[in-house]
Amino acid sequence: MDALLANPGSTERTRVRRIPELAVTDRSTLHQVLDAGLLGHLALADETGQPYALPVAYARDDESLLMHGSTASRLFRLCAAGTPVCFTVTLVDGLILARSAFESSMNYRSVMVLGHCNVLHGRAKDRALRRITEHLMPERWDEIRKPSAQELKATAVLELPLDECSVKINADGPDDAAEDVELPVWAGRLPLVRQWGDPVPAADLKPEHARIPDYIQRWSFS
Amino acid sequence: MDALLANPGSTERTRVRRIPELAVTDRSTLHQVLDAGLLGHLALADETGQPYALPVAYARDDESLLMHGSTASRLFRLCAAGTPVCFTVTLVDGLILARSAFESSMNYRSVMVLGHCNVLHGRAKDRALRRITEHLMPERWDEIRKPSAQELKATAVLELPLDECSVKINADGPDDAAEDVELPVWAGRLPLVRQWGDPVPAADLKPEHARIPDYIQRWSFS
Repeated sequence: MDALLANPGSTERTRVRRIPELAVTDRSTLHQVLDAGLLGHLALADETGQPYALPVAYARDDESLLMHGSTASRLFRLCAAGTPVCFTVTLVDGLILARSAFESSMNYRSVMVLGHCNVLHGRAKDRALRRITEHLMPERWDEIRKPSAQELKATAVLELPLDECSVKINADGPDDAAEDVELPVWAGRLPLVRQWGDPVPAADLKPEHARIPDYIQRWSFS
Repeated sequence: MDALLANPGSTERTRVRRIPELAVTDRSTLHQVLDAGLLGHLALADETGQPYALPVAYARDDESLLMHGSTASRLFRLCAAGTPVCFTVTLVDGLILARSAFESSMNYRSVMVLGHCNVLHGRAKDRALRRITEHLMPERWDEIRKPSAQELKATAVLELPLDECSVKINADGPDDAAEDVELPVWAGRLPLVRQWGDPVPAADLKPEHARIPDYIQRWSFS
């Protein structure tokens, strides 16, 4: 798959160069892709120049991304100190089965955000933690125990503004050359489906709490 | 979710610091996680120090990762020139629904590989392209048209040795404190299931090629 760089709040750094016809330029699509993901990869380089891509749960809040991590994490501390980052969310939607190896590919939706993180404190931090839980587990926040002072102290919350970002979407079938269409090979696309399986109760779940909440049945993927 | 760093071929840079009990240290698990993924995120920094996380299809071949991209890609060219990289594959296996916000989390399997890429040429490059297709689309390579000289010229193939890497796996239910177990909240885990949907024929598929190959029915996720 190609490098993907494009446009809502586009700069020269985020202009889609590879296969620019896959670039998407409206902010509602940017928001939809981010809202459909659970986890992104946060790229940053350490003091030695070594880059890392860290898997990080996130949520979108209006025109920012919110992430949490441990205040003891060396790499999260670098982000908190303002090192440049890239946050990429990629949803694999399926395979493109072309008649040639070269045209065979994936369908995907991907967002890349460049910038610097801000550290959130106080009420903004509380709000962000709630927002992250609500994104990953809608309607659950009100039911669970909120973070204690000690838990809050152990948690770093970062905000990354959606100022410089790109969206790239590939949702088509194969695009084979006319002569390849004649080859005796099935061609098309194979969707990849994500869905929630059956909830598995915790080993220490009390019998009186065994009823699975209705809201879990409402969770789905887009 | 935490930064994840650990051990098969471990160094100080890849030792799991955050939640070290989730570190996995055998190479067969490393291989299994990599073989279960379709796409990883390649992190690198450009000349200005700006990091990027690029979604990249890959395959494992013995003790290396193989990736392909466009020779015209600026960031792929930096990798080919030997800039340090990190390649991370993360499979989200579900949500951990704890009784507290703090213990709520995700189940996942994640591999992080640090190092430098080598550029493959000639027969090693041909072999790598075959291997990548076989990983993503098993048994399809023999049926489809192989890359032409011009297509090969447009394709860069990179190899990243699995020398310095880490594996981190979270597969448990929630781990709530004893007092939280008393709270009147359902707790457990919610598996995320990935599966292939029904194949969708290409718009230009000839009626005489309409039979879906048997091998596609055999594709599955682990």
